[in-house]
Amino acid sequence: MNDTVKYVLDESRIPKRWYNIAADLPAPPPAVLHPGTRQPVGPDDLAPLFPMALILQEVSTEREIEIPEPVREIYRQWRPSPLYRARRLEKALQTPARIYYKYEGVSPAGSHKPNTAVPQAFYNKEAGVKKITTETGAGQWGSSLAFAGALFGLEIKVYMVKVSYQQKPYRRALMESYGATCVASPSQETQSGRAILAQNKDHLGSLGIAISEAVEVAATHDDTKYALGSVLNHVLMHQSIVGQEAMAQLEMAGDYPDVIVGCTGGGSNFAGIAFPFIGAQLRGGRRVRVVAIEPAACPSLTRGKYAYDFGDTGHLTPLVKMHTLGSTFTPPGFHAGGLRYHGMAPMVSHCKELGLLEAKAYTQTEVFSAGVQFARAEGILPAPEANHAVKGAVDEALRCKTEGVSRTILFNLCGHGHFDMQAYTDYFAGKLTDQHYDENELAMALAGLPSVVAA
Amino acid sequence: MNDTVKYVLDESRIPKRWYNIAADLPAPPPAVLHPGTRQPVGPDDLAPLFPMALILQEVSTEREIEIPEPVREIYRQWRPSPLYRARRLEKALQTPARIYYKYEGVSPAGSHKPNTAVPQAFYNKEAGVKKITTETGAGQWGSSLAFAGALFGLEIKVYMVKVSYQQKPYRRALMESYGATCVASPSQETQSGRAILAQNKDHLGSLGIAISEAVEVAATHDDTKYALGSVLNHVLMHQSIVGQEAMAQLEMAGDYPDVIVGCTGGGSNFAGIAFPFIGAQLRGGRRVRVVAIEPAACPSLTRGKYAYDFGDTGHLTPLVKMHTLGSTFTPPGFHAGGLRYHGMAPMVSHCKELGLLEAKAYTQTEVFSAGVQFARAEGILPAPEANHAVKGAVDEALRCKTEGVSRTILFNLCGHGHFDMQAYTDYFAGKLTDQHYDENELAMALAGLPSVVAA
Repeated sequence: MNDTVKYVLDESRIPKRWYNIAADLPAPPPAVLHPGTRQPVGPDDLAPLFPMALILQEVSTEREIEIPEPVREIYRQWRPSPLYRARRLEKALQTPARIYYKYEGVSPAGSHKPNTAVPQAFYNKEAGVKKITTETGAGQWGSSLAFAGALFGLEIKVYMVKVSYQQKPYRRALMESYGATCVASPSQETQSGRAILAQNKDHLGSLGIAISEAVEVAATHDDTKYALGSVLNHVLMHQSIVGQEAMAQLEMAGDYPDVIVGCTGGGSNFAGIAFPFIGAQLRGGRRVRVVAIEPAACPSLTRGKYAYDFGDTGHLTPLVKMHTLGSTFTPPGFHAGGLRYHGMAPMVSHCKELGLLEAKAYTQTEVFSAGVQFARAEGILPAPEANHAVKGAVDEALRCKTEGVSRTILFNLCGHGHFDMQAYTDYFAGKLTDQHYDENELAMALAGLPSVVAA
Repeated sequence: MNDTVKYVLDESRIPKRWYNIAADLPAPPPAVLHPGTRQPVGPDDLAPLFPMALILQEVSTEREIEIPEPVREIYRQWRPSPLYRARRLEKALQTPARIYYKYEGVSPAGSHKPNTAVPQAFYNKEAGVKKITTETGAGQWGSSLAFAGALFGLEIKVYMVKVSYQQKPYRRALMESYGATCVASPSQETQSGRAILAQNKDHLGSLGIAISEAVEVAATHDDTKYALGSVLNHVLMHQSIVGQEAMAQLEMAGDYPDVIVGCTGGGSNFAGIAFPFIGAQLRGGRRVRVVAIEPAACPSLTRGKYAYDFGDTGHLTPLVKMHTLGSTFTPPGFHAGGLRYHGMAPMVSHCKELGLLEAKAYTQTEVFSAGVQFARAEGILPAPEANHAVKGAVDEALRCKTEGVSRTILFNLCGHGHFDMQAYTDYFAGKLTDQHYDENELAMALAGLPSVVAA
């Protein structure tokens, strides 16, 4: 009556190489520009922020990059992560679809983020770095870097978006358990933070602001570098192990996805599961529909403009071409804090422009409803971010039912919701609302995009 | 520099049978007595509370009891659970000891409790039961039964000890996510609850009181049965899969424990890891030292009396011989709520009397300190209950260092601490204190033990 179908790979099958989609794309993504000169950046421009090994990965066009053995060694603590067939959910939905999910909540920090936190900490340690600054939204990234920092003996300082800092005090406690320091952003500790607070002392913060703070500190201290949990090419590449494993696990199942669904904030868990399949398609393999699900309250892919923009609010980062709501845009304080970013990974944006993926936006209450249905069927309570992917997969499965077609749906359950119980408490109390962004603010933010003639 | 040593069993090696230590003991445990007649209970006496399949397991002296296939099917979602060698912790402690831990936090509810929740729900469903009542301390058991209830379509009602209900609102949210109902105990819903509240309307509750409430409801409703998350023989037996798997995994490692450490509240996770090894010893295998770690604020094994007592405060349960602090004893509201029980599993108590195990008590702050050290080394944040086992293992490892001896230490990391972050928040804020029970209250509770001449 209740059947579990779990696909487990032997640990010898943890991928040995990260996959770089840049090698397979028909056209390269637009150049990254220096914020001052607006000329393409070179590796040296990024050196104050990142160790050279990561910069070289960022600009690499090699298809595969070897994963250092000490990183694979740590991956082995929780990898390969399981792939499940959601048989109980299929029954609940009475769908002819076959639904599979890759479960990244098995990592010590409870999400896919350690997949990149560990190599980033490793390369920084190798380069002699003592301290890493970063930002975090919901706290999944901050706690993952804190975890990796503890393993490598690195000092970790996390600027946490203030609304999440308030909503999720327990994520902060987790970071502190791993020995990291966490401050609410905007803070008084940086010029960027102070500038925002001078305008509005009650500012709720945003990932864009927190990035400015973390970048500023790294840029002004010799022993300190900066780490980003999403958006950048090397981060997306580190996550490619998710899709690579899923591909091997689906092969065990004798199946291949017709549709892949992932939630998108900065784009890393989505790219992680989707890019290896898109790459296979580009190399002549089977075509797969790829659907990015984003929150209706922060809809960069569905409502943003594909344009050059800053990655942060303080305009300290390089300019990248991406789907953006404008770097001054502040999304409302909904619970999927990991998806509250004004822009989208340039590589994901580029793939959308190339027609390799589509995007869809959902409201907060409808994704929580899907998440609770999933929990009752499958026993795993998803993170609010992951609820977006659940909802996307459920809708694809219901479409199969309507159309009387069986399709194979693969989605990434990128994290569990154990640290997001206030959101579920609010949901059950009927207090969760569908917050909307301010249309005027969006129009202003888009109008304020830097005018850049692409190189 | 950072090495992970994980022992993974193929899912075909999920045990096919539960292990029953009763078959191997040199003397049977004392009889269970009817609370009214004080004569040994028969299966029919227990029929209002439990389905017959579980009653027969409770009194069985067979060494092995077959695990139903639908239960193994669900176990497969997270089992076999991993066994890790704590290499990074060993290095941090600079100990010659080899430390292994079995990690039960990988279950959907985050602890070992689903190991018994699933079969209990299965047997109730088979018997046509519609609703199950239960109690919960920290909430690990309640959320596990809620999880199992969702899978089998059973209605679950959880009486949660009030102090935990207040300290851990998110555990309640998890139960509700799985569709269960949760009320703070003592409640106005039962005679037992009302009697307590009449004496003290601000009573913090205890497991003993919550058990009375849950038992009362089951005993007075035909379609409702009761489930207990620890203490009883059948519960301990269900947990034996933990030790059985660990034994197979240590065999992969070419190792065997010299010392086994577990935390004890009701005794189930401890018995789960220890009994298969004690059984092997009783059948002529290698001797193993077994150490039960309990909270100094609720020290049934180290300060309690081995005597007949009620399992609950309302005196609705049968009388069992166990190490007890007295059924009226209310421990202080420390954070390891799963260990706040006045008695100890009769089978664990019996084994202690037989000299098969020893016990040790630790204070709250010292176990949290060990838990944080463990998290920074191993990356997994333990539940407050599990911190007791961590502290016990750390002390054994440090003793190896002092003595210059290498021993193999195995402990059960029975759950993660994701739902216990308030405790960690308090710990880091210096607010966690070592609460003591009232010596006068203990003396009175022990003086009030029922006078029973053993059958």
